[in-house]
Amino acid sequence: MTAFTPHRSTRDYQQLDAAHHINAFLDQKALNQEGPRVMAEGRGVYLWDTDGKRYLDGMSGLWCTQVGYGRQELIAAAARQLQQLSYYNVFFHTTHPAVNELSERLFSLLPGDYRHVIYTNSGSEANELLIRCVRRYWDVMGKPDKKIFIGRHNGYHGSTVGSASLGGMKFMHEMGDLPIPGVEHIGEPYWFAHGGGLSPEAFGRQCAQELEDKILALGADKVAAFVAEPFQGAGGMIFPPESYWPEIQRICRQYDVLLCADEVIGGFGRTGEWFAHQHFHFQPDTLSIAKGLTSGYIPMGGLVLSRRIGETLVEQGGVFAHGLTYSGHPVAAAVALANLGVLQDEGLVERARTDTGPYLQTCLREVFSQHPLVGEIQGAGLVAALQFCRDKTTRQRFADETDISWRCRSIGFDEGVIIRSTLGRMIMAPALVISRGEIDELIDKTRIAVDRTAEEMGLR
Amino acid sequence: MTAFTPHRSTRDYQQLDAAHHINAFLDQKALNQEGPRVMAEGRGVYLWDTDGKRYLDGMSGLWCTQVGYGRQELIAAAARQLQQLSYYNVFFHTTHPAVNELSERLFSLLPGDYRHVIYTNSGSEANELLIRCVRRYWDVMGKPDKKIFIGRHNGYHGSTVGSASLGGMKFMHEMGDLPIPGVEHIGEPYWFAHGGGLSPEAFGRQCAQELEDKILALGADKVAAFVAEPFQGAGGMIFPPESYWPEIQRICRQYDVLLCADEVIGGFGRTGEWFAHQHFHFQPDTLSIAKGLTSGYIPMGGLVLSRRIGETLVEQGGVFAHGLTYSGHPVAAAVALANLGVLQDEGLVERARTDTGPYLQTCLREVFSQHPLVGEIQGAGLVAALQFCRDKTTRQRFADETDISWRCRSIGFDEGVIIRSTLGRMIMAPALVISRGEIDELIDKTRIAVDRTAEEMGLR
Repeated sequence: MTAFTPHRSTRDYQQLDAAHHINAFLDQKALNQEGPRVMAEGRGVYLWDTDGKRYLDGMSGLWCTQVGYGRQELIAAAARQLQQLSYYNVFFHTTHPAVNELSERLFSLLPGDYRHVIYTNSGSEANELLIRCVRRYWDVMGKPDKKIFIGRHNGYHGSTVGSASLGGMKFMHEMGDLPIPGVEHIGEPYWFAHGGGLSPEAFGRQCAQELEDKILALGADKVAAFVAEPFQGAGGMIFPPESYWPEIQRICRQYDVLLCADEVIGGFGRTGEWFAHQHFHFQPDTLSIAKGLTSGYIPMGGLVLSRRIGETLVEQGGVFAHGLTYSGHPVAAAVALANLGVLQDEGLVERARTDTGPYLQTCLREVFSQHPLVGEIQGAGLVAALQFCRDKTTRQRFADETDISWRCRSIGFDEGVIIRSTLGRMIMAPALVISRGEIDELIDKTRIAVDRTAEEMGLR
Repeated sequence: MTAFTPHRSTRDYQQLDAAHHINAFLDQKALNQEGPRVMAEGRGVYLWDTDGKRYLDGMSGLWCTQVGYGRQELIAAAARQLQQLSYYNVFFHTTHPAVNELSERLFSLLPGDYRHVIYTNSGSEANELLIRCVRRYWDVMGKPDKKIFIGRHNGYHGSTVGSASLGGMKFMHEMGDLPIPGVEHIGEPYWFAHGGGLSPEAFGRQCAQELEDKILALGADKVAAFVAEPFQGAGGMIFPPESYWPEIQRICRQYDVLLCADEVIGGFGRTGEWFAHQHFHFQPDTLSIAKGLTSGYIPMGGLVLSRRIGETLVEQGGVFAHGLTYSGHPVAAAVALANLGVLQDEGLVERARTDTGPYLQTCLREVFSQHPLVGEIQGAGLVAALQFCRDKTTRQRFADETDISWRCRSIGFDEGVIIRSTLGRMIMAPALVISRGEIDELIDKTRIAVDRTAEEMGLR
């Protein structure tokens, strides 16, 4: 049970929420009538709501609590930094120890030839900065017409105007007069849905070819960058075919188009590598980071730049007119440093690659390969998705797949497990501290949720 | 002296900073050569760098540390919340006690008819959300063509693509292909610079008239909102003439154009009122907030909506496709709640209105009214600006006013006081906890900096 007693009743919190708060990505009127869950406490991979109900959090908050909830190392780091320097800016020709120690640690674990970082408060802000930074880079390089970004349908890069434009979420675009000019989109490498009669490998190459076609149609001298998540996160946890990324990288290099990886979800150990692009064996020019950087304890994001971009901006760019009040916030930086320390000291990324990750992936395949509702299982390390479908052989999806997966998610909450539904896919991405025993529980409860969903549909 | 010993030398931190970090709004190459100050510790209104030098922080960090540095109430609130629930999202039909208790407190002190809030991580994100929220509002109201935002030259609303577009900073626009379409700008109510032969009152009315002219030129059925800071912050701490805001409000109401106040700098007691629009006696439809909401201890911002907008979105809008991983972050919310508690319990806003604010304003006028370098003194409560000029009578400004004020700022740092320079204006905005004795020190050191600047120019 919980160690903390909430001050008020669940109903009181729900009424306050309905009175004043607009929550994220939902119908607030329906939520107000239904009454939201009130989450009160977190320990490790577990959460408790104000009614004392326990949940195994299979989504690590929102893909972010890599070290689990309530880690004393991070809490102590926050408290220490708050005592020492609760805030200072990096505007006034000033820096501070916390942000420098974080940068040192970050670049010690970053693969490849990265040199500089600019900190933000979120992944959305990192991708806003990406737009401004990449355009500035091409300006300084004497190519001011190289301005267009190419993103992907169903890609997700944030909820602000620029980041939502880079993303390819149609329902967001329709609701906000997006994308802004200078952003184009190509298809997503979602073989199960769009692969038709092609093999995954052929489909991966075809999706990459779309990028080359788009670059040629726009003119390579007009295209600044291609931006994508190594695997699509909010778009359904979609792993591209193995042929995809090498070909994308070849095309970007050939046309001098920057390759920008959104590592907000994939970064900090999720796939069993420090960054997801390592899992997929490509080398981006920029990395957008957030979430696992601080395990979500304090908001923080950032944009990591290759040596080429960073040195160009610093050595030739003069003043870069960008800054956020909380860029490199000392408390966020101190917590990020402690978080990276826990990930390193406990070998959590290594463990996700060699132990817990393979265990999760193997168990999922054992349990669900023959399940009548499940047509595909994707994932690596501690991230995975189950694709629901009507017919495995033809890969025919349900017309109402969103409702079905939503129902499965709701049953999961009832059963005390948090898994996410997106389109017809059930997603899990637990904290990197999850044990084999907790993975057993995650899979058992997920199986119950999927079975109950199938039963309700008359499939079992 | 400081209570904390830095782990490394100043030079080590400077080298780390140069190796990896891109700071805010500056020439990084020059900074790397010069070596940034390394700020190590904060207590109340004082900061210490890693060389043990003490500064009286006349800018409250970056207009944000209302309760000063190192307040135990805020630190304890952060630690308590980190122990209890270090993170959870507000996406999954879920809320949590901290965000609800903050909302309750926020609306208890908000004047006027506000009802809902959506939380973000920063002022930039609040203004990004403003764009998406206002356009969504007019969609729901059946006026999908009402899309254009009108901002002001030299206004500042953030550093992301959308927020920098709302702002009117020319050097930012030139560096980022901004503004995005659907954002127009009118002139700023900066009488000293642009008032010509008009009285302040006549100039204020003329500036407001620009809004009406712009609305009529664009068509009122096309204009969604006017967005402005009650007083311009980053643009030089410019107070508009008294005639300005009543006329702006009349025009917005007449043409059904939403009046959106950016309270990121002015909010939470800065002028001696809880919000700056109260000081200027107008009633906005939305309030963008950040900075003083948490005193900068943890990043947080938000957008407050009038009852009309909030209820329309909730009751008629269905799903609003917006959300940030850290929207309503529990640790940020707990710290904000504690921060508002300190502001209320210690009567700091009241004190800024009736005691410390008038004392600062009176002293500044006594010391600088007759100064040969100072042409105007503006401000209220605990925010003020000194306008440098060549000739008070004609209001002739220096051609190199930016260099002069920059020099004054640098001398200030040498003397152990942090004041900000923008164009030809020296700005101060100390923490609301500042005492009369500390105000004396702030003004003494500012006087030394201004005198030394004048001496270097041969004016004394």
